[in-house]
Amino acid sequence: MIYFDNSATTKPRSQVVHEVTECMEKCFGNPSSAHRLGMDAEKKLKMARERVARLINAKPGELVFTSGGSEANNMAILGAIDKGQHLITSRIEHPSVLRLFEKLEKDGFPVTYLDVDRSGLVNLEQLAAAIQENTRLVSVMHVNNEIGTIQPVPKIIQLVREKNRKAKVHVDGVQALGKVAVDVKKLDVDLMSLSAHKIHGPKGVGALYVKNGFNLKPLMIGGGQEADLRSGTENLPGISGFGVAAELLGEDLEAKLAHVKALKLYFITMLQALDGVLINSPADDVHADAILNVSFEDVKGEVLLRALEDYEIYVSTGSACSARKAAHRNYVLPAIGLKERHIEGAIRFSFSHLNKLDEVEKAMAALYKILPVLRRVKK
Amino acid sequence: MIYFDNSATTKPRSQVVHEVTECMEKCFGNPSSAHRLGMDAEKKLKMARERVARLINAKPGELVFTSGGSEANNMAILGAIDKGQHLITSRIEHPSVLRLFEKLEKDGFPVTYLDVDRSGLVNLEQLAAAIQENTRLVSVMHVNNEIGTIQPVPKIIQLVREKNRKAKVHVDGVQALGKVAVDVKKLDVDLMSLSAHKIHGPKGVGALYVKNGFNLKPLMIGGGQEADLRSGTENLPGISGFGVAAELLGEDLEAKLAHVKALKLYFITMLQALDGVLINSPADDVHADAILNVSFEDVKGEVLLRALEDYEIYVSTGSACSARKAAHRNYVLPAIGLKERHIEGAIRFSFSHLNKLDEVEKAMAALYKILPVLRRVKK
Repeated sequence: MIYFDNSATTKPRSQVVHEVTECMEKCFGNPSSAHRLGMDAEKKLKMARERVARLINAKPGELVFTSGGSEANNMAILGAIDKGQHLITSRIEHPSVLRLFEKLEKDGFPVTYLDVDRSGLVNLEQLAAAIQENTRLVSVMHVNNEIGTIQPVPKIIQLVREKNRKAKVHVDGVQALGKVAVDVKKLDVDLMSLSAHKIHGPKGVGALYVKNGFNLKPLMIGGGQEADLRSGTENLPGISGFGVAAELLGEDLEAKLAHVKALKLYFITMLQALDGVLINSPADDVHADAILNVSFEDVKGEVLLRALEDYEIYVSTGSACSARKAAHRNYVLPAIGLKERHIEGAIRFSFSHLNKLDEVEKAMAALYKILPVLRRVKK
Repeated sequence: MIYFDNSATTKPRSQVVHEVTECMEKCFGNPSSAHRLGMDAEKKLKMARERVARLINAKPGELVFTSGGSEANNMAILGAIDKGQHLITSRIEHPSVLRLFEKLEKDGFPVTYLDVDRSGLVNLEQLAAAIQENTRLVSVMHVNNEIGTIQPVPKIIQLVREKNRKAKVHVDGVQALGKVAVDVKKLDVDLMSLSAHKIHGPKGVGALYVKNGFNLKPLMIGGGQEADLRSGTENLPGISGFGVAAELLGEDLEAKLAHVKALKLYFITMLQALDGVLINSPADDVHADAILNVSFEDVKGEVLLRALEDYEIYVSTGSACSARKAAHRNYVLPAIGLKERHIEGAIRFSFSHLNKLDEVEKAMAALYKILPVLRRVKK
């Protein structure tokens, strides 16, 4: 099996599976319990928090564990705002940001949606012009989940700080973690969402970075776990598995990123030798190499996906959230100005540092075989 | 190890651990992905939904998987109400209900808090008198987490339906599942919260039963998973483990409940032969046997807990949520009219059907040894 759908989800690493299993078997106590089993569980929780914090250069106390990236996004946005405040986001955010802003707009919040250029980069002039005295929150994703664009987050944050000292910046970092280096202190971001299952960790666990001193409102109320910011018995096996995944990812991260870049460059070089291929992802300097979006002319994306599946090669026609729901059609490719015929034939290849060069080689060999056949059939 | 803190959390069954592990290793696809790995994951999701639904006699489509009981409670309550509507709950709810209602009250919702009697039963006359034309939601727990009282949910629902056809009833069923028979159709409840880790399933997963046709608002917005009611990539290993736990629990449930009743009766009989012991849990006919709350006079609960710990016997002085936070002091025992000296010496023993009679025997032998010593020290 060749799995190139790592932006939908990743296969948990064996050490992660081991941690989750061991935690369920040997450390099943409730971290809030007063007895030894509870203390043991709390220690595990602390260790996981330190591990995830280290990966993004946060303090452990700045992390709130959640059930995943979508919860982190919802919590960040809803927890930071009050009625009537002006909000800014971009047109190519994940649905857990974009749809939420659309709902908030219906509820009466003034919202500015930033346009993006052909590379998927937000329009900074538009951003500068949009920031008002009443602007409370700017939410942009670090790495786009469909085409891999890296937003100029430091510039965005600098701009926001210059224009309005009270405005806060939330960054959806779900697709950034493991694909680019993430340093919350260097970025000087206020809120950042993370997800474990995109970095070979378990599903059902994520985190929200909340800068020290930020007065966030909780999304869920109850037993007061996570410093009263996220109630509910902690998913200790999941959180502990997230910690292991974070630690593993942090080891030689630069080498991992270089490996993925090499995979991508091989892939692109081979693609460019094919006729009727359009690379939708942006140029190297603003591209998270792990997410490569390509349009194949005169071929339907879904048909190519099925044909590759016969070779046990797994890819996507877009983000998993939009893959099977007509109501959630891809809006990122239209936003960067792609024409319908190129949207139709788009495939997202998303790599992990665990992918091997020979997998890319085999996938390319399959593409070279499949494409002419599919195009002949279509004509 | 003798674990009598099953209401804080339970040890996952080996079959559950196996399911979670296998799911992580072999079925790691995103259920929303269009390829075979996604389809396989979706099938697993479907099977888990059927299993959990069967346990409570719901239709699979009436279940929304969540990250746990607290999320289910928050989602049920916040999703059912609109500004200004009148709400009713009791004084002995779990913090994820009670604290949420307190917040809603601050936000301007009129809230009635029902008193409970010495048995922890809500005052039905007070309920009848409280229901107004504007009453939207009545939220009561099925089984109390501190003393094990079974509320007369069918009577409560009947009363609500008689007085106001538009009012809805939410039942926090987190401590009911596995401790009493739960049948949502017989109860005719509108919303019911469930949690996996209380029934030997994984942490980080729960469900909300939403009666067919109920127009609930989502708590989290995004990719539209769970019929658009709960966005976020599904925690498939957790959900699948929940399914296995539900199926195992459903097998000979009556025999399991009888076994726990037998454990409790042995325990109570032995306790009653001791001096200065007060059973805080109610009489058999309204008692979920698994949760036995007992006050030991002239002993501090925390001291007894530590002493039992030396025998590797794990108990609790109250719910895990209130165990280690001064701010969340036990409010259930005062609500049933217990005096300070009895609150101080209260211990919650919470059993599982997996506990053996010889464990109860050993624990009782330990208590017989420890109590006189602790009392002598105190004098």
